[in-house]
Amino acid sequence: MSQYQARLEKIWDCMDYFGVALLMFEDSSARRNSCIRWLTGHPGDALLFLSANKKSMLVPWDVNLAKAYSRADFIVPYNDFERLPVKAILGAVGKLEIPAGSKIEIPPVTPYPAFLNFIGELPDFDIICREDSVSTYALRRRCVKDAYEIAIIRKAAEITNKIISLLEKNVRSGKIKTEADAAIFIELEARKRGCDGTAFETIAAGQDRSFGIHAFPSWTNAPFAGKGLSILDFGVNLNGYKTDVTLTFARDPNVHQQKMINMVEKAAKLLSEMLVINNDTVYFEMVAEEYFGKFKKRLVHAIGHGIGLDAHEYPYIRNRKEDNWELMSGMVIALEPGLYDPIHGGCRLENDYLLEGNDFEVLTEAKIIQL
Amino acid sequence: MSQYQARLEKIWDCMDYFGVALLMFEDSSARRNSCIRWLTGHPGDALLFLSANKKSMLVPWDVNLAKAYSRADFIVPYNDFERLPVKAILGAVGKLEIPAGSKIEIPPVTPYPAFLNFIGELPDFDIICREDSVSTYALRRRCVKDAYEIAIIRKAAEITNKIISLLEKNVRSGKIKTEADAAIFIELEARKRGCDGTAFETIAAGQDRSFGIHAFPSWTNAPFAGKGLSILDFGVNLNGYKTDVTLTFARDPNVHQQKMINMVEKAAKLLSEMLVINNDTVYFEMVAEEYFGKFKKRLVHAIGHGIGLDAHEYPYIRNRKEDNWELMSGMVIALEPGLYDPIHGGCRLENDYLLEGNDFEVLTEAKIIQL
Repeated sequence: MSQYQARLEKIWDCMDYFGVALLMFEDSSARRNSCIRWLTGHPGDALLFLSANKKSMLVPWDVNLAKAYSRADFIVPYNDFERLPVKAILGAVGKLEIPAGSKIEIPPVTPYPAFLNFIGELPDFDIICREDSVSTYALRRRCVKDAYEIAIIRKAAEITNKIISLLEKNVRSGKIKTEADAAIFIELEARKRGCDGTAFETIAAGQDRSFGIHAFPSWTNAPFAGKGLSILDFGVNLNGYKTDVTLTFARDPNVHQQKMINMVEKAAKLLSEMLVINNDTVYFEMVAEEYFGKFKKRLVHAIGHGIGLDAHEYPYIRNRKEDNWELMSGMVIALEPGLYDPIHGGCRLENDYLLEGNDFEVLTEAKIIQL
Repeated sequence: MSQYQARLEKIWDCMDYFGVALLMFEDSSARRNSCIRWLTGHPGDALLFLSANKKSMLVPWDVNLAKAYSRADFIVPYNDFERLPVKAILGAVGKLEIPAGSKIEIPPVTPYPAFLNFIGELPDFDIICREDSVSTYALRRRCVKDAYEIAIIRKAAEITNKIISLLEKNVRSGKIKTEADAAIFIELEARKRGCDGTAFETIAAGQDRSFGIHAFPSWTNAPFAGKGLSILDFGVNLNGYKTDVTLTFARDPNVHQQKMINMVEKAAKLLSEMLVINNDTVYFEMVAEEYFGKFKKRLVHAIGHGIGLDAHEYPYIRNRKEDNWELMSGMVIALEPGLYDPIHGGCRLENDYLLEGNDFEVLTEAKIIQL
């Protein structure tokens, strides 16, 4: 459990910096936040309170789940507070001995009307709700994975790679014929190999549906890996840690499709070469756009993102100056160049990379598979 | 497409009442809102703007998806606004001819820091963000389903019932032996029958895991429907409309387990008899609590909820005076009495009901199946 302690220490340092006496995290169906899992191990719905005097109080919906999975100084069922956040805050104020007048930080995603309610109901405290906060620091801090996380992510990548090679085998043999065959195969293989499931709803878009960035519905009984381009975007979820890869299957590609394949493969190579410590993320999308632009093609989605307890997390790798990140050792990043054509279909190649020291390592073995 | 027009008219009436010139809905991965689908048909990520002069502007991430599925006066790709909500609002102000000084209502779930940003960037408008709003009215209005919705929901219930009967058959025959068998069977059958998938991640909790309200992970390779109590909580998603049912499988129940079964069945009967137009929802949970209380048992989750485009939507059926609802014709409601014991396992029975005229009709055929 020492990994949680080390992470908590970082948050307590930041609370000290901001002068926050009590910090609240919320993970609920309306507002998901994996920081609670990151800091305590608790995988599901809960509130988490941290106090400046280095105590933690977890307030889970399901107290049996919390007791089985998590570490906190106090575990108090949310039911004891009638599932009302204000009552839970007052409970934490008592249990963690927060003096009146202290700064209490609530999540920066708190809706404005709810914020007004907190202010009204907690007049004895200074309620803080802002972007530049301990909560945001925690999300940003998660970019850099610790040894414990990297070990899980490596294992998740191994499982992903095993599934990739089985997918290739089963598509080639004709065992996987439809989008549903592919999606169900992944779901079963992931769980069979110890995962809690997939990282997100698998996108299996056969040759007739691959033109869309995110096929809707995400998979159907339509044929998969027939003549043309088929896309398979999936990941596994191991102990909460996600992978995210995209394979493209190409069968008898026409000239235009082969050009798209070549471009996407080349873009993936160009981008992976930019994975150098201290590089700015803002340039990745620019390079991909410039490269595709030469062929009068456009990039229609962000080029990459961090990956960890969330399938998409910091750093976001996109062309936004106000959202630039410097690459750091310990980051795990997915890069996903893709091109989509209403007639010829889509082609995307996505792999996950780990930056360690000055080097990067490609963790996953997704590829464009010529059938 | 007339169903969308009729729904929009209701929202425009409400905008008139509140004096709102421009209304914004947001459906994104951070903040889901099915009202956009309800009002336009668009199934995915988008912003939707409605103006007091009865125009609509949809701002989708995927414009091809929008063109295939939705109806709006204007469809403008979010990319045209650099995927920045403030720029999209300014775009809508221009396109829909909103006069300076007008009231613009943004979603009541807008985070406080984002709200401050809107205020700062849109000084020429009166930005409204509150619970008592047109947005909330839309969510509340969705409680009462129209004929178009009821037709889809009936079809979704039929598919659900077919799956229930196949599940019973396959569990009895031994074809379904594990949680994974059950979960995958549902997923495949739903899509085979024209659904977009399941309504939510199926919870298949075999005899060793049924003690939890929501088993974690939601299904595994553990045995299912062995000696004791196993729970199967699932639904289908047909054109966006969800069902939500829970079966319990009981094999050779001991005396305690049989008592739990009897209590849950009796509670389900008591509750369904309360489904009378104009009844208050706040009493449902009280009745279940009182009934279970006689046997020194406790209700540990809400007793029910509305169902439609969301698996959980208004009306919430729980014991909160400030959240009381009067039952109305056209409501579709799931009721789910359950009991959970750390030693003997769990038992839950959930069905979906439609209120029409003064009567209710049970749409689904979930039951406690004695093996």
